[in-house]
Amino acid sequence: MDNQQRPRTKRRRSLSVEEYVNGVLNRDRAVIARAITLVESNSPKHFETAQQVLKQLMPYTGKAVRVGITGVPGAGKSTLIEKFGSMLCEAGHHLAVLAVDPSSSVSRGSILGDKTRMETLSKHPNAYVRPSPSGGTLGGVARKSRETMLICEAAGYDVIFVETVGVGQSEITVRSMVDFFLVLMLTGGGDELQGMKKGIMEIADAIFINKADGKNKQAALNAKAEYNRLLHYLQPATPGWETKAYTVSALTGEGVPHIWEIIKGYEEKMKESGFFQERRASQLSEWMDRLIEDELKMSFYQTEKVKSHLPSFKQKVTAGELPLAQAVKQLMEIYRQ
Amino acid sequence: MDNQQRPRTKRRRSLSVEEYVNGVLNRDRAVIARAITLVESNSPKHFETAQQVLKQLMPYTGKAVRVGITGVPGAGKSTLIEKFGSMLCEAGHHLAVLAVDPSSSVSRGSILGDKTRMETLSKHPNAYVRPSPSGGTLGGVARKSRETMLICEAAGYDVIFVETVGVGQSEITVRSMVDFFLVLMLTGGGDELQGMKKGIMEIADAIFINKADGKNKQAALNAKAEYNRLLHYLQPATPGWETKAYTVSALTGEGVPHIWEIIKGYEEKMKESGFFQERRASQLSEWMDRLIEDELKMSFYQTEKVKSHLPSFKQKVTAGELPLAQAVKQLMEIYRQ
Repeated sequence: MDNQQRPRTKRRRSLSVEEYVNGVLNRDRAVIARAITLVESNSPKHFETAQQVLKQLMPYTGKAVRVGITGVPGAGKSTLIEKFGSMLCEAGHHLAVLAVDPSSSVSRGSILGDKTRMETLSKHPNAYVRPSPSGGTLGGVARKSRETMLICEAAGYDVIFVETVGVGQSEITVRSMVDFFLVLMLTGGGDELQGMKKGIMEIADAIFINKADGKNKQAALNAKAEYNRLLHYLQPATPGWETKAYTVSALTGEGVPHIWEIIKGYEEKMKESGFFQERRASQLSEWMDRLIEDELKMSFYQTEKVKSHLPSFKQKVTAGELPLAQAVKQLMEIYRQ
Repeated sequence: MDNQQRPRTKRRRSLSVEEYVNGVLNRDRAVIARAITLVESNSPKHFETAQQVLKQLMPYTGKAVRVGITGVPGAGKSTLIEKFGSMLCEAGHHLAVLAVDPSSSVSRGSILGDKTRMETLSKHPNAYVRPSPSGGTLGGVARKSRETMLICEAAGYDVIFVETVGVGQSEITVRSMVDFFLVLMLTGGGDELQGMKKGIMEIADAIFINKADGKNKQAALNAKAEYNRLLHYLQPATPGWETKAYTVSALTGEGVPHIWEIIKGYEEKMKESGFFQERRASQLSEWMDRLIEDELKMSFYQTEKVKSHLPSFKQKVTAGELPLAQAVKQLMEIYRQ
């Protein structure tokens, strides 16, 4: 072997499918990390291995409670997750914290890139904290996070947090992969509620108004009353469940144990009604449809001939020189050539 | 010619592209009707002619105000359109009333199928009332209604109503083809507001509480106050425009002239800010993307091999026997063979 070609660092031996599977099932943190890296890889070779690993892990998945968490920047998501997560770990739960953050590749609003933000939690033996897979579309990031969730479930993590910073459609996407969706809001009275992200109230199973402490407590209580008033008029995100607003202080910990009571109450009620299982089945079916759609779109928009023709077609349509349906028909013909 | 093959009814001579174009531009109602039938046709032969007609009409389109109207069944949409529409026609406007109703093919909740519901309006020389194209997907129905709208604009109709009964995603679709979106609500106090369709408040430019007459008037005023309270917390559907609730009585006509004042005020403000034109351009671009997506999906899901394999793949995924991404990859391979 040519000396120059020798790798400088010792290359890690690749694991076999069985080694991945056994490592994950034995909750070997190093193997879990490598299995997640495997599903996050964009290489076609890794895809095949990853899918074989996932296939063997499937029977061990699905047993966790999947909790989605979103909130505007500054709402205190990291602090809350740290506090709430540590509480769960102390109580004997095994918690995995994942993230769906399509923006992290362009380094704006990135979440969980900096693990030190959850210093206590990420050092806890019962916790596994994983940053958002970087790069790619929301669909791609979400697919990887979903598979990471399955790996964590197979490893015996019984509570999964899927955090999102709420860029673009990311909450909708996270809502479609979790059982319970928690929205963290900032405290503040009246007008601060204005301009909240469209539709966010209608996908929440619970709204927590954070920073309900000190001088801010009364304002938080007022905000809670306002949110409850508003929620009263909206259809709940989960049929048979009443979405309500609560106050919490991630700083003092007040109200944090109540979050878990709400989630447990929800799980019990929804399993009893059968909606828990029903939603998971329909989530799976919808994910499949979405992946198919993503593949179809990617294949279209990445075809060279389409890429080179699309701008001029769009321009002609916008200028009123070409009817829409005709433009689309011609583009389809170009694509299918 | 064999006698038996002779058609029983006299066959209409087909029109040439020029005849269609001239007839529409001269507002010849018989030709307008035939042009709309042409764009509604599913035959590939008609498609080509329709697109040629549309292409020539394009320079004459875009000058109308496009108003979307939705409301729950029983909210009094037809009565309101009849009253409001007649008022506009009397004032010298030319009004086309179209519909997007993906359900009309299965005869549930069909709107405008029965023209007699708008008897006065549909007889007015300045009005053109067209039922929803029947059959097909929401996307298909919407495309046809959009092209019908262009034909009506080329014919000089300066106000277009696009009505929808609000089945599934139809309001979102109508929102994406109009300038102003009006939601008609039922009167009633407090709890009647509950259970309103998700997201409907957030795509409205104005909410009208109908049946604000007689004994119901006070309840309607209360509902108006409630809606305004709620709207205060939501992001407006149109940046720079404050969505508000109003009362109206389609029965007595009280409040009906005010609808037009609001729409005119909106148009003026939005044209001044440039958002009017900006939205139309982005609507066009989004429609193009959607048509492309629809085409891609249709091509996939209607491929025989996909059709025959899809159910078993879905079943395996749901049963946890096959990882999602692998199932999708295999289906894609089947599709591309």
